[in-house]
Parts: sequence; C-alpha cells; structure tokens
Amino acid sequence: MNALRTIVESQRFQRFVITVIIINAITLGLETSPTAVSVAGGLLSALDRIALTIFVIEILMKLVVYRHNFFREGWNVFDFVIVAVTLAPLGEGVAVLRALRILRALRLISVVPSMRKVVNALLRAIPGMTSVLTLLLLVFYIGAVMSTKLFAASFPDWFGSMGASFYTLFQVMTLESWSMGIVRPVMDVYPLAWLFFIVFILLTTFAVLNLFIAIVVDAMNTSDHQEQEETRSLVSTDHAEVMAELRALRAEISELRARQRE
Amino acid sequence: MNALRTIVESQRFQRFVITVIIINAITLGLETSPTAVSVAGGLLSALDRIALTIFVIEILMKLVVYRHNFFREGWNVFDFVIVAVTLAPLGEGVAVLRALRILRALRLISVVPSMRKVVNALLRAIPGMTSVLTLLLLVFYIGAVMSTKLFAASFPDWFGSMGASFYTLFQVMTLESWSMGIVRPVMDVYPLAWLFFIVFILLTTFAVLNLFIAIVVDAMNTSDHQEQEETRSLVSTDHAEVMAELRALRAEISELRARQRE
Amino acid sequence: MNALRTIVESQRFQRFVITVIIINAITLGLETSPTAVSVAGGLLSALDRIALTIFVIEILMKLVVYRHNFFREGWNVFDFVIVAVTLAPLGEGVAVLRALRILRALRLISVVPSMRKVVNALLRAIPGMTSVLTLLLLVFYIGAVMSTKLFAASFPDWFGSMGASFYTLFQVMTLESWSMGIVRPVMDVYPLAWLFFIVFILLTTFAVLNLFIAIVVDAMNTSDHQEQEETRSLVSTDHAEVMAELRALRAEISELRARQRE
Amino acid sequence: MNALRTIVESQRFQRFVITVIIINAITLGLETSPTAVSVAGGLLSALDRIALTIFVIEILMKLVVYRHNFFREGWNVFDFVIVAVTLAPLGEGVAVLRALRILRALRLISVVPSMRKVVNALLRAIPGMTSVLTLLLLVFYIGAVMSTKLFAASFPDWFGSMGASFYTLFQVMTLESWSMGIVRPVMDVYPLAWLFFIVFILLTTFAVLNLFIAIVVDAMNTSDHQEQEETRSLVSTDHAEVMAELRALRAEISELRARQRE
Repeated sequence: MNALRTIVESQRFQRFVITVIIINAITLGLETSPTAVSVAGGLLSALDRIALTIFVIEILMKLVVYRHNFFREGWNVFDFVIVAVTLAPLGEGVAVLRALRILRALRLISVVPSMRKVVNALLRAIPGMTSVLTLLLLVFYIGAVMSTKLFAASFPDWFGSMGASFYTLFQVMTLESWSMGIVRPVMDVYPLAWLFFIVFILLTTFAVLNLFIAIVVDAMNTSDHQEQEETRSLVSTDHAEVMAELRALRAEISELRARQRE
Repeated sequence: MNALRTIVESQRFQRFVITVIIINAITLGLETSPTAVSVAGGLLSALDRIALTIFVIEILMKLVVYRHNFFREGWNVFDFVIVAVTLAPLGEGVAVLRALRILRALRLISVVPSMRKVVNALLRAIPGMTSVLTLLLLVFYIGAVMSTKLFAASFPDWFGSMGASFYTLFQVMTLESWSMGIVRPVMDVYPLAWLFFIVFILLTTFAVLNLFIAIVVDAMNTSDHQEQEETRSLVSTDHAEVMAELRALRAEISELRARQRE
Repeated sequence: MNALRTIVESQRFQRFVITVIIINAITLGLETSPTAVSVAGGLLSALDRIALTIFVIEILMKLVVYRHNFFREGWNVFDFVIVAVTLAPLGEGVAVLRALRILRALRLISVVPSMRKVVNALLRAIPGMTSVLTLLLLVFYIGAVMSTKLFAASFPDWFGSMGASFYTLFQVMTLESWSMGIVRPVMDVYPLAWLFFIVFILLTTFAVLNLFIAIVVDAMNTSDHQEQEETRSLVSTDHAEVMAELRALRAEISELRARQRE
Repeated sequence: MNALRTIVESQRFQRFVITVIIINAITLGLETSPTAVSVAGGLLSALDRIALTIFVIEILMKLVVYRHNFFREGWNVFDFVIVAVTLAPLGEGVAVLRALRILRALRLISVVPSMRKVVNALLRAIPGMTSVLTLLLLVFYIGAVMSTKLFAASFPDWFGSMGASFYTLFQVMTLESWSMGIVRPVMDVYPLAWLFFIVFILLTTFAVLNLFIAIVVDAMNTSDHQEQEETRSLVSTDHAEVMAELRALRAEISELRARQRE
C-alpha cells in the first residue's frame, strides 16, 4: 500500500503520465488528418486505447491509495470526470462523444504543477466578479425577455425564443455585426429599436469593463498590501529597537539618581 | 404605524418581496414561450397581476410609513417609477408597454443590499468621467454635424439627419463594420472621407481609453491611499511613543541637574 | 488699452463668448435639417455671420491686448487657426469648407477652463507614448510596403498603393472584418497570406496594448509617488523632531558632566 | 584593428547607418509606385544595391572586430539574419523574397538605442505571460481538434484541417464575424454549436484579459517596489542616525556613572 503511494507520488510517475497525455493529444490531433488515418489509423486508435487504459489504471491506483480522500481534492475530481466522460466513446459512440476525447489533454493542467497554479490564480479572480456577473446576468435576462416580446414576431431567427435572444444579445455585447447585422434590419421594422440596443450595449460594456477593473485592482492591491506590510514591519522593528535603547537609558539614569540620593 | 414600520423594515418582509420579484421575473420570462402561454396562460397572467398588486401595496405601505421622506431615498424613487411605469399595461396596453413589465426585475437591485452596493459603486465611477464624457459628446456633435452636411445627400440611410449620423458614428466608434460597411462605400463617392473617419476613430477611441484609465486609476488610488494612511498612522503612533519616552528622560535629567545644584 | 485687457480677461466676457459658441453650434446643427432651413434659413445664416463676427472681434481684441505674446499661448493659436479656417466659407465656399464651420464648436475646449484641463491631461499622455508609436509606425510602414508589393496585382482596391495598404492595414488592426472581409479572400489567391496578417495583428495589438499600459502605469505612478512623498515627508519631520530632542538631551548631559568635573 | 573598432563604435558611423536604413526604406517604398518605377526605376534599384552593399560591409566590419563575440549579442544576430534573408532576392528572386527586403527597415530598431530599449521592454513582458500563453495554446489545440472532428465534414473551408481550424478559431477569438460569419451558419447544421463557441470565446477572452492584467500588474509592481524601497531606505537611514545618537548618549551616561563611583 505504501509502496503504491510512493509510486503514485513519485516524480517519475508524474512525468510518465505527462508524456502519455502529450502523446495522446498528438495522436488525437493526427486522427483529424485523413492522410494520417489512412496510413496509420490502426496504430493511432491502438495508442489511444493504451493511453486511456493507462489513465484508468492511474486513477484506480490513486483511488486505492487515497480512498475517499481522493474526491476531496478538486483536481482529482476534475481528472476523474474527464476520464469518465471520455471512457464512453471507446465503443461505437456518437461523433460528439468521440470529439470529446481530446478533453483528456486538459489533464495537463491538473498534472503539471505550474499550470495548476495559473488556473488556480485565474479561478481566484472569479469570486471578486460574482456581484457584477449577477448584475450582468440580470441585464441579460431582462434584455432577452424584452427583445423576445418585442421582436420575436418579425425576427424569429434572432429573437424567436429566450435562447435565441440570449445568443443574439451575447453577439451584440461582443459588438459583432451588432449594427449592420442586427440593429439596422430591426430598425427598418421598429424605428426606435436603437434605444433598446444602445442602452443594452452601454450597460453591458460598462459592466464588463468593471469586471475587468475589479480584477486589475484586486491583483494590484494584494501586491501593494504586501509591500506596505513590509514597510510597516520595518518601521515597527526599528521602533522596538529605539524603545529598548531608550528604556535602557532611562534605567541607567534612574540608577544615577538612586546613587545620588545615597 | 410603528407596527407597520416594523413589518416594512423586517428581514422576512424583504425576503418575501425578493421572492415575489423573482417569481414575477420567471412568469414574465415564461410568457415569451408560446407553449407555456397556451398551457398556462391564465395562471401566468394571474400571477403577474398578483405580483403587481403586492408591489403596489408594498409601496403604499412604505409611503404611509415614511411619508414625504420616502422620496428622499433614490432607490425608493427608482422602485416607484418602475412600478408606476409597469402599472400602465395592466389594461390593454401597447406591446412596448407590456414588454416594459420585465423592468420590474430591476427591483432586485434596489431590494438586495449587495446588488445595491455594486450599482452604487458603479455609479460612483461616473463623476470622475464627466469631463471626458463631455469632450466625447462634443466630438460626437461636431462629427454628426460634419458628416450630415457632407454625406447626407449621397447616403441618406446613414447620414440623412443628425439622429442617423449620431447612430452611425456610434457604430463607427464601436468599430463595427466601420470600414467594409460604412467608410469604403462612402470613399467610393468621397475619396477623402477616410480622413474624417480615421480622425474620428482615433479621437473617440483615445477618449474612451482615458475614461477607462480614469476609473482604474481612481479605484487604485483610493485603496493605495488607505494603505498609506495606515503606514503613516503607524509612523505617527510610534513617533509619539518615542517622543513621550524622550520627554520623560529629559525630565529625569532635569531633576538630576536640579539636585546637583543643591 | 488696460480697459480693453480688463474686458477681455473678465469672467463676463468669457461667459458671453461661451454662449456665442454654444448658440453658433446649435444654429450650425439646425442647418443640417432641411425643415429648419426652409423655415428659418435666413435667420440661421444671419446668426452664423454674427457669431463669426464676434469671434473675429474677440481675436482682434486679444491681438491688440497681448500683441506678439498672443501666439505664445498654444490655445490662442488653436482659436486663431479655427476662426481663420472657418472664415473662408463665409463667401461661396465649397461644401467641405462650409462643413468645417462646426469646428468652431471646438473653441469650447479652449474657452472653458475645465475642458482645457482635460485636454491638457490627455495631451500630456502622448510623450510617454512616442517610442511605442514610432515602433507602431515602423511596423505599419513595413506592412504597407510588403502588402503593396505582394497583393497589389490581385487586390488593387485594398492594396493598390501605399495609401490603400495603410488604410486596409489600419482596418485590419482594428480587427474590423479582417478575416471574412480581407484575409480569407486574399488567402484564396495567396494561401500563405495568413502568415503576414496574423503576425501583423499580433504585433500591432501588442503594441497598442503597451501604449495603453504605458498610460495607466504612468498615471498610477504619479499618484503613488505623491502618496509616498507624503509618507516620506512625515518620516523626515518625525525624525528631525526626535533628533532635536536627542541633541537637547545630550546637551543637558554634557552640562551635567561639566559641573561634575568642577 | 583598433582603428576599425573605433570607426564601428563611433556615433558618426552609427548615424551614417541609420541614414542608409531610412533612405533604403524610402526607396523600397517608392518601388511600390508604378510611376516612381517608370521614372526612376534604375536609380531606385541602384540605391537598393548600394544600401545592401553598405549593410554587408558593416556586418563584415563588425565580424572582423568582434569575431565570435559578435553572435553573443542578440541584436547582432537580428541584424545578421535580416541582411542574410534580404541578400537572396538580389538576383532574380521570387516576389515574396523581393517583398521581404523591406524587413531591412527593422534594423532601425537594432541601431537606434531608444528603439532598442522599447523593444527590450516589450520583450521583457513576455516571460510573465508564458504560463497563460501555454494555457491559451492548450485551449486552442483542444478547440482545433474538436472543431475539426465535429465540423470538418460540413464546413471544409473553415474547419477542414487542423490549420484551417486554428485560423478560424483565431478569427473567433478576435470576435471578427464570429457569429454572423461563422457560428450562425454552423448552427444551421449543428444547432448546439453555440455551446462550443461561446465556451471557447469566454475561455480565450478571459485568458487574454489575464495576459494583459499580468503585464499591467507587473509594470506597476516594479515601480511601486522602487518607491517603497526608497521609503524603507529613508526609514533605515533615519533609524541608524537615531540609534547612533542614542548610543552616544548612553556612552556619556556610562561615563557619568563611572565618575560618580570614583
């Protein structure tokens, strides 16, 4: 058991898994080329099966070693879900499921420590964004309901249902063809539609901008706070030293006075 | 009267209003689906009427409790206007007025304290932007007058009136199809039109950039100022302590000298 | 002479000029509306002539008061050029010159002190950008020469001359229709064209990003420096006070020793 | 040898090379104009040959002076490669190679010290971006494999091969015509395609945003750190001065006590 844990936690084992992930990513990439498939299709799918087998064994080993603690670590759950999802298309799966196999390359993130760190840092930025994201979602919901009610009849492709409206409003928010593609045609039927869309663009752009500013300011404050803490700790240390010296001085003077009185 | 105030200001009442707002937002969303309307149209419109009645009663209660102070709080005015606007289409209103009912979901912002805080923060960013916004408006006005005078004859759809020009210039500022959609066709008639549009794009983009920078810098400064204040207060406290110690020392030495003279 | 200077520099005179600028901007805006022109065309052009006359008199007054010092102030030159340029179309000018008259509204910037301050602040950001701007220009020049040489034959509209290439590359830099509008058609003829355009996009986007970063960092540093200076000045004042106290102490002790020796 | 080194390192030599680079850039620019070529084609190509000869001689001189140390400096390698690459089309090269001659203008960067500094600063920003760039590349690779597998059959132009998918996904990341141009047509065949593309856009946009934030925060921290170091050094100097004074005081008091005992 401990021997297994030593293996699972060894650097060599980790490097081996990374190598398998990369090779697997490359073979899955090659499968997209008809030439590669016609030349070495058998080899590619064999390599894919081997890689998957290794991933399954790796997870089983970790399950044996860590038991129920395995699922406490978010990245293990991540690995587990990815391998489970991509296990399905081993048989004769649908095209979509087969395409999902490349998601295994995402395991690089959970296996390489530096990648894990970057993603953790990115995820840490999200809590600071929730309030503005909620607001953005509210604006989107209201926008979708309004545009569906107003424009569904004349523009079923763009605003026919809540889903279609959400998608179109997302497109408008990214500013892609918002005017020539969407709003000008809509304005031919409803001349005042620009009012709705320009308000929507201003609100969402301003919100996205503030999302972005929140992240910048948060990142800056963290580092500024550390610098200031360092300065403050220097000030405090120096102060303590001065006070100690002053107290020593005072003690000596007190002694002087005491002797004087004798 | 006080009993009413206790109710209006209780957490339970607030949570009840939030629930009604959310349910109302969902029913209004469902009304966009023809299936939902054919199955439960009566229920949906009944729920909508009930929600509106609750909102009206809520505002009446607050009016009774706070009287003329009610309108002193901006968020109350916000609630009042939203409910008043959406009161109209209860009868046989026009489609637009019916669509405006979903604006009631905006009341979530005024009712949920954390949302209110976010919006207040966003609004606080605006004063710092007024001067650049005024400049942007001036550029827009000049741009609209010039483009209307120059291009109205050949491109009535885009620059036929001040309003059309404003809209088209807004589109150009967002960079949507500015070249392939607008400027290249205009240049076929007026070969030097690029001069006007590129200057306009550079000016407005630079102004928007500075709007954005103003917000970032303002947000950073606020937090940096607090950190520095903390450091400075530490320095001052330490300094006061040292000075007190030094004065005590001096007092003792003065006493020493006094005795020496005796 | 001094009386004239008092008038020119009085707040009332300034406010009068601001009013004339705004009225003139409005009349020029109204001139774009065929209805307004047909109803009150004579009045509008009369008002325009009056406004221009006032501007000319204002500048002449300032020239009399300040003489050659008038042109030392950048904003005066700005006013002079704008009025001079818009003086031309008083007679039967070409359409373009008539359209330029609205540029007089820009005088608002030079007359309103707060606007002047904002523009000065924006202009102050430019020196910090020169080096990156030069680099950007170099990339543009190289890009324009290369694309003209490579694509002029097949795409004369987009890359037929250095000017056309500059314009098209500017469009590509703003990412407007760069792929569907320009690069995909070009790739149909020159399959490797994506190499040129993607390198161009990455370089220019990165450069523009750095322009922007330079402004943010510069604005932040200025304010951070002030805060730190304040902290440092506090530290120095406190230090001077402590040192003065210590020297006084030392003087007293020296005296003690001197008396002891007696 | 030393005489050659003095020449090569002299300001006059540098200025001469800069002049040649600029003249060469201008002649290469003029070569794009059919009029200029028909009028002075011979002169232009003669000037080009002369410039190239000067560049070759310059590099040979530097090679003689610095020998193998020449290649230790990155900018020398840069110059060497550029001249070498543009040496080829002197004979009857292909159009592309002829177009590459303008890359010699890039030598301005390596020759003008201030330009070199800017580029060095830009390059210094890259290491801090590697981790996010790797992540972005991974997302791109996974996106390319998935989109090729899923959409290659129906949209060979956009997703027919890994290369085509990479290009199309780059276009989608820049938000150019992503919806009207690419995703809406794809959704006509695969109605759920929006899921893939919106996740892709959110991921890549968020990653690019973080790239950008990393640069801003890094630039700010560097300057903030310097300011804080200055403050800390002031605090330390002041502290040392106070401590020296205190120790002197203590020494005097010790002496007082010593004498008292006598």
